[in-house]
Amino acid sequence: MPRLWNETIETHRHAVREAILDTTAELVSEHGLLSVTMSQIAEKTGIGRATLYKYFPDVEAILLAWHERQIAGHLQQLAELRDQDGPPGERLQAVLEAYARISHDRFSHDHAGLELAAVLHKGAHVAQAEQHVHDLFKELLTQVAETGDLRDDVAPDELATYCLHALGAARSLHSESAVRRLVTVTIAGLRPAN
Amino acid sequence: MPRLWNETIETHRHAVREAILDTTAELVSEHGLLSVTMSQIAEKTGIGRATLYKYFPDVEAILLAWHERQIAGHLQQLAELRDQDGPPGERLQAVLEAYARISHDRFSHDHAGLELAAVLHKGAHVAQAEQHVHDLFKELLTQVAETGDLRDDVAPDELATYCLHALGAARSLHSESAVRRLVTVTIAGLRPAN
Repeated sequence: MPRLWNETIETHRHAVREAILDTTAELVSEHGLLSVTMSQIAEKTGIGRATLYKYFPDVEAILLAWHERQIAGHLQQLAELRDQDGPPGERLQAVLEAYARISHDRFSHDHAGLELAAVLHKGAHVAQAEQHVHDLFKELLTQVAETGDLRDDVAPDELATYCLHALGAARSLHSESAVRRLVTVTIAGLRPAN
Repeated sequence: MPRLWNETIETHRHAVREAILDTTAELVSEHGLLSVTMSQIAEKTGIGRATLYKYFPDVEAILLAWHERQIAGHLQQLAELRDQDGPPGERLQAVLEAYARISHDRFSHDHAGLELAAVLHKGAHVAQAEQHVHDLFKELLTQVAETGDLRDDVAPDELATYCLHALGAARSLHSESAVRRLVTVTIAGLRPAN
């Protein structure tokens, strides 16, 4: 087969896969996790059931793939903020704010979303993603330490763990302004001791 | 039946129940969650299987009761520190340190303990206990606010949520000195802005 043809197939497969993920997420948030079937997904995506089964064996596998895509997107977003121009302190603040907002959004949608999160949160890919975020925080904190704007009695590694957990509180907060205040408080904990 | 007799029965029942919980926790931490049976528990507690079944229907129910007892003990410990004499700021520090230590200990034992925690952490009583701890933090933070030693741009309610999550980082830390540093950092976030 000519190379172009292969690429076209790849692009097509990717587009179908993305459409399946989007449709499933929509159906779950409309009807709840337990009532969504492979038939519904196929119908709403506009493909046959047989085709759907060539992509995924069951609803759970689709949700897992959807969740992995979400997480990859979030990590991408944080990495872009880390790699911006500007002093490390500002980039750290931007990254921490983004992480808090992501945590907040992920848990503040509707009940269906919560259900989903609860089911999916058992996955090993979640622990792996948290490790990525931790390392990203640690890297930036190390850069801030070099500017002298970080407390020097606690290692960046431990401060990254503190940030990760403290900002996780965004999941329990009820407004975006509360999330912003949480970031302020968390960053205050990082300042050099007077 | 005379009252004394009733009390003796109650005391006896309580002692047996406590012994069952202790034995089960021991067996689980020795052999892992999945390999422990009702027969083993009865034998090691020194009671008959029929007696054991009068107290608990299965291993899971015993573990749940054990976990509830642990949590009640921790809440009791925190409440005692809250109700000590002394300025609110010192009592807050004592309570936050104790909570961080408890979080650390609960997750730093052996793998069996981790397994146990994972299984049990689905219980509604865990969410309820976290709410208790949150309210206890909030109460003390409100008292500290009255002394002027607390930042006044964020409400005690939100600061309690921050503390609960930030100190949860103790679960991921590997030494007691790291836990102490975490408490220091967390408290630094609570100080009045300069």
